[in-house]
Amino acid sequence: MSESIINRQWVVAEHPTKELEEKHFGYKESSVRPLQEGEVLLKTHYLNIAPVMRMYMMKDGGGYSSEKLLSIGDVIHGRGVAEIIDSRHSDYQVGEYVHGQVGWQTYKISSMTDQEKFVKMTPRKLPVHYGLSALGMTGYSAYCGFFHRGYPHPDDTVLVSGAAGGVGSLVVQMAKTIGCKKIVGIAGGKVKCDLVKELGAHDVIDYKQEDVAERLSQTLAEGYDVFFDNVGGEIMDNSLLYMRAGARVVQCGAISEYLREGQFIPQNVIQVRKKAASLNGFFVYRHRHQYKEAEDRIASWIGEGVIKPLVDIEIGFERMPHALMGLYSGNNIGKKMVQVAQTETIY
Amino acid sequence: MSESIINRQWVVAEHPTKELEEKHFGYKESSVRPLQEGEVLLKTHYLNIAPVMRMYMMKDGGGYSSEKLLSIGDVIHGRGVAEIIDSRHSDYQVGEYVHGQVGWQTYKISSMTDQEKFVKMTPRKLPVHYGLSALGMTGYSAYCGFFHRGYPHPDDTVLVSGAAGGVGSLVVQMAKTIGCKKIVGIAGGKVKCDLVKELGAHDVIDYKQEDVAERLSQTLAEGYDVFFDNVGGEIMDNSLLYMRAGARVVQCGAISEYLREGQFIPQNVIQVRKKAASLNGFFVYRHRHQYKEAEDRIASWIGEGVIKPLVDIEIGFERMPHALMGLYSGNNIGKKMVQVAQTETIY
Repeated sequence: MSESIINRQWVVAEHPTKELEEKHFGYKESSVRPLQEGEVLLKTHYLNIAPVMRMYMMKDGGGYSSEKLLSIGDVIHGRGVAEIIDSRHSDYQVGEYVHGQVGWQTYKISSMTDQEKFVKMTPRKLPVHYGLSALGMTGYSAYCGFFHRGYPHPDDTVLVSGAAGGVGSLVVQMAKTIGCKKIVGIAGGKVKCDLVKELGAHDVIDYKQEDVAERLSQTLAEGYDVFFDNVGGEIMDNSLLYMRAGARVVQCGAISEYLREGQFIPQNVIQVRKKAASLNGFFVYRHRHQYKEAEDRIASWIGEGVIKPLVDIEIGFERMPHALMGLYSGNNIGKKMVQVAQTETIY
Repeated sequence: MSESIINRQWVVAEHPTKELEEKHFGYKESSVRPLQEGEVLLKTHYLNIAPVMRMYMMKDGGGYSSEKLLSIGDVIHGRGVAEIIDSRHSDYQVGEYVHGQVGWQTYKISSMTDQEKFVKMTPRKLPVHYGLSALGMTGYSAYCGFFHRGYPHPDDTVLVSGAAGGVGSLVVQMAKTIGCKKIVGIAGGKVKCDLVKELGAHDVIDYKQEDVAERLSQTLAEGYDVFFDNVGGEIMDNSLLYMRAGARVVQCGAISEYLREGQFIPQNVIQVRKKAASLNGFFVYRHRHQYKEAEDRIASWIGEGVIKPLVDIEIGFERMPHALMGLYSGNNIGKKMVQVAQTETIY
């Protein structure tokens, strides 16, 4: 069946060094070849849009090495939700859905290697795009990062930066769900800040309008126990001043550092020793053994109505470069993604 | 009985700002008053000598707040092993031994408050001074820091700085006891380095004779899983470059930073996020619930002959200032302490 199918792809046309521009993206089309034994044909439904993608496109991978470095003409890395539309692999049946390394393309032939990190989705009668948000890596990151690197207790005060983003908005809701005593969010702009309050935060700092250092010193005068950080940079550094003894900082992301020239050197790390705190780097792929636990608990919270996945969906494969470039100006609310298929699917 | 007893004390004569000198120490004598209800009279047998003591003596406590700030004339803080020689407290009997905040004095009247952190010693027919080394805070620090903040596995590569010191020498032996694959120590001078090798390290870097950065890059080319740090500063910072994915760094002490002007800012902390590692500040008093586990396991290892407590004992209460000043030049081997009582006691 695959010979008549045209695959559309976004590739690296030029390696970016600083901000992304149109010229860095190239567009290609090609026919899909027939499957060989052990392969599946995937049809992309949704593609993820994430800060780290700019780094994937850089010549040196921006110093991150978790994915293969890209050369000019290579399909850009990116996770997606895809439907198996043909299979010569005994573990995968036509009609099943997976999320994993699809890349910026509308079809993919895969032998489902470990490197591609595909995870089969469980049918739950929910929008299939949840496989890129609450029931995929975004949800796993929020859950595994918060519970297995942040060790929250109900009595805790929790600080979340990037609180209106895909991961952050889930962490705020999880903190509320387990009854954390005080939840403080950091987000940019009134719309996002209002939203974060609605999700359960007791206080939200608007980093675009307010003096973050001053607001932190007021609202966290008694310190925090868990800090779930998605932004890095000065906000992270400043937040290190408000650790309580034994606090846990989860470094999930550092979007503010990815666009910076040179390396950001935090000034307040000595607080980690002085407060007997922990600075915990977090990399979701180290938590594979906890994905199922994460997914089941989040799905049950969605069922109870206590967790609402926030998604920000642009429609059309042609919008991929635009969607990614927009991400760095912080204009998304919730998990950013692009709908590639014609219709929204429930699975 | 106590009226005829003379208490000898070392007090703060002048607050140090940089290195310690004789003029900072003052000597006092006074009679011990009779006990009141709920008090015990302690006779000091051994007093601890620790890097943090210089900070206790500073006007601002050197930025550390775990003990009450000292004024001119106050007895210097310090833990000791003491015998209960009189008691009007129902929980403490004459003849029992404790370790805790005795202070730099030969006798102490105490109501055994939490603040003084006294721990009753278990009679084990071992030298009573082990209460300041392997079977006291030094042992608790090594055990709780290594096992409960470093989470070592038998397959791990372990790096220990200050490896010939009281805590470090125990950590090296514990790493060997649980079968860690590779143990690398850092110590100063040939005598100490030879000793650390004898305790079980596979390689030892002599920071006084060798280029630490170069040696680390060679011996830890494949990285470490656990880094137990007692020294802080450049050696710690340099060591951050050799974390494996998921590595755990235990920040137990930072002797190289205590004498520094201004605050040391590590340059390589970004590695924590990049390697999904953990930087774990460690403060032994947060682990009280694990003291008994620590003491029982260490005592049993001592019994089996696999752990040897290293102690460096100066004799005579009058030697206290000299013993402390010598500590910062790194001339001690194992746990430094001063024997105050006339004879060595087995308890």
